[in-house]
Amino acid sequence: MNTHAIEAQYPFKRSTSVQLRFNDIDALGHVNNSVYFQFFDLAKTEYFAGLEVNADINWCKPAIVIANVNCSFLVPTVFQEPVEVLTQCAHLGNKSLTLLQHLINRDTRELKATCATVMVNLDPETNQPAPLPKVWRDAIVAYEGHE
Amino acid sequence: MNTHAIEAQYPFKRSTSVQLRFNDIDALGHVNNSVYFQFFDLAKTEYFAGLEVNADINWCKPAIVIANVNCSFLVPTVFQEPVEVLTQCAHLGNKSLTLLQHLINRDTRELKATCATVMVNLDPETNQPAPLPKVWRDAIVAYEGHE
Amino acid sequence: MNTHAIEAQYPFKRSTSVQLRFNDIDALGHVNNSVYFQFFDLAKTEYFAGLEVNADINWCKPAIVIANVNCSFLVPTVFQEPVEVLTQCAHLGNKSLTLLQHLINRDTRELKATCATVMVNLDPETNQPAPLPKVWRDAIVAYEGHE
Amino acid sequence: MNTHAIEAQYPFKRSTSVQLRFNDIDALGHVNNSVYFQFFDLAKTEYFAGLEVNADINWCKPAIVIANVNCSFLVPTVFQEPVEVLTQCAHLGNKSLTLLQHLINRDTRELKATCATVMVNLDPETNQPAPLPKVWRDAIVAYEGHE
Repeated sequence: MNTHAIEAQYPFKRSTSVQLRFNDIDALGHVNNSVYFQFFDLAKTEYFAGLEVNADINWCKPAIVIANVNCSFLVPTVFQEPVEVLTQCAHLGNKSLTLLQHLINRDTRELKATCATVMVNLDPETNQPAPLPKVWRDAIVAYEGHE
Repeated sequence: MNTHAIEAQYPFKRSTSVQLRFNDIDALGHVNNSVYFQFFDLAKTEYFAGLEVNADINWCKPAIVIANVNCSFLVPTVFQEPVEVLTQCAHLGNKSLTLLQHLINRDTRELKATCATVMVNLDPETNQPAPLPKVWRDAIVAYEGHE
Repeated sequence: MNTHAIEAQYPFKRSTSVQLRFNDIDALGHVNNSVYFQFFDLAKTEYFAGLEVNADINWCKPAIVIANVNCSFLVPTVFQEPVEVLTQCAHLGNKSLTLLQHLINRDTRELKATCATVMVNLDPETNQPAPLPKVWRDAIVAYEGHE
Repeated sequence: MNTHAIEAQYPFKRSTSVQLRFNDIDALGHVNNSVYFQFFDLAKTEYFAGLEVNADINWCKPAIVIANVNCSFLVPTVFQEPVEVLTQCAHLGNKSLTLLQHLINRDTRELKATCATVMVNLDPETNQPAPLPKVWRDAIVAYEGHE
């Protein structure tokens, strides 16, 4: 089942601990698949908030939206398991970027799930893809330490 | 943004209307991305429940688990929008199958999101991938009308 | 455990069928307590949308907010159980109203949970309780058929 | 709107920080009401896990279930607001106990919501209320420091 897992090319610089809730667990006794995306979104928010951007972020009027997610579920997550999400920008395109995220057990470092998210910058006027703002591009390159 | 959308090779025979809830909508005024997977899961349950399988389904002890999802978000879904999920088995492998699902507006038939889910059959003893049970394979072929 | 259940004084005129989702079920095999409030909110939305109000409803800028809920859980709800929410306005005060809601099994009419919700009208300027708008009061009285 | 708020008779000894998620926020820009109960449940789990009970806790086969919640919503909670839940056992009956919980802003100590939860011990054979196990009663009295 590991064939879909997405390899990281660079070291992860951002780690986000996740607090599990009782209702994250479904009838199978595992964290429900849909909840993994709540974790990944939480870590995305932290990733972007941790960048040094010379601009205000309006979380409720985003220009950069999620276009595609590709997530492989490798090992189930159980109640009270300590987990964290590692996040990196794996690709920085002209109008889009790809975040790579790993959900791991905080203690054993076991890889639970790996998710690539393509985010696209939209022009608020036309709602069409537009070049990523330079302040964001610069902030990501500065944070990740490579193009 | 449409490049990631997954094309359907066969007609969809299964449709599942989805009842939106107020809290499905997030601060952006759209159905939150993570909620789409609740919709797709709901429709998967209906898809499998609608097959004529000569075996009991134990939803709480599944043999067939989700290994990978690949979902493209094309158009946001808003509060009180009528939506439905179309589901088909797009690929039937030896140990895995791929479900293709489209979330559409029930009235306009506009495509909102498209998701491919790879599901793998696990041997309950070893937890390793194992050939799909013949009763399931037969039921899917009979339902879809092709191999 | 039935002592907390809230009796209905009037017949329920509004019924809302609820579509259960797989992830509504928690590790105990029942619909999670927190999910009941998603059901009750869904039915509140339908209740208000079903009134003949001579005014537009802006669901995203509500004047009438939830101040208190009092919910008794009588019988667990299980996966694929057919359920519906019955809703009535049980009390119409000057600045507040109380909705009474029953979650029942659609087939057996078994009472699963009963919830009283106090909703208060807020003046958008001061954020303080203010008299309920007359159009709402009239619409509720007309719908329920009594003061 | 403060009249329904439930006063604490004793000091709170248990505090649980809550990690907000992006999708906790609904279309109104506030943490959705139903999500408060996820927070309170999380804090209940921590409260019970923090007791020194001479017995194993099986979270997935609870004997003590939620019979009633009475929650007052005083002040909305917004995205990225630091919040915590304070929990105490406010009443220890023969077959039931009442937990009192306050959701507060971690920095300003502003009270956001207050919730009383009645939990009943069920005999697993008959599913009827039964006296609270002595190990639990002793552990709660020892923790709270009073009867």
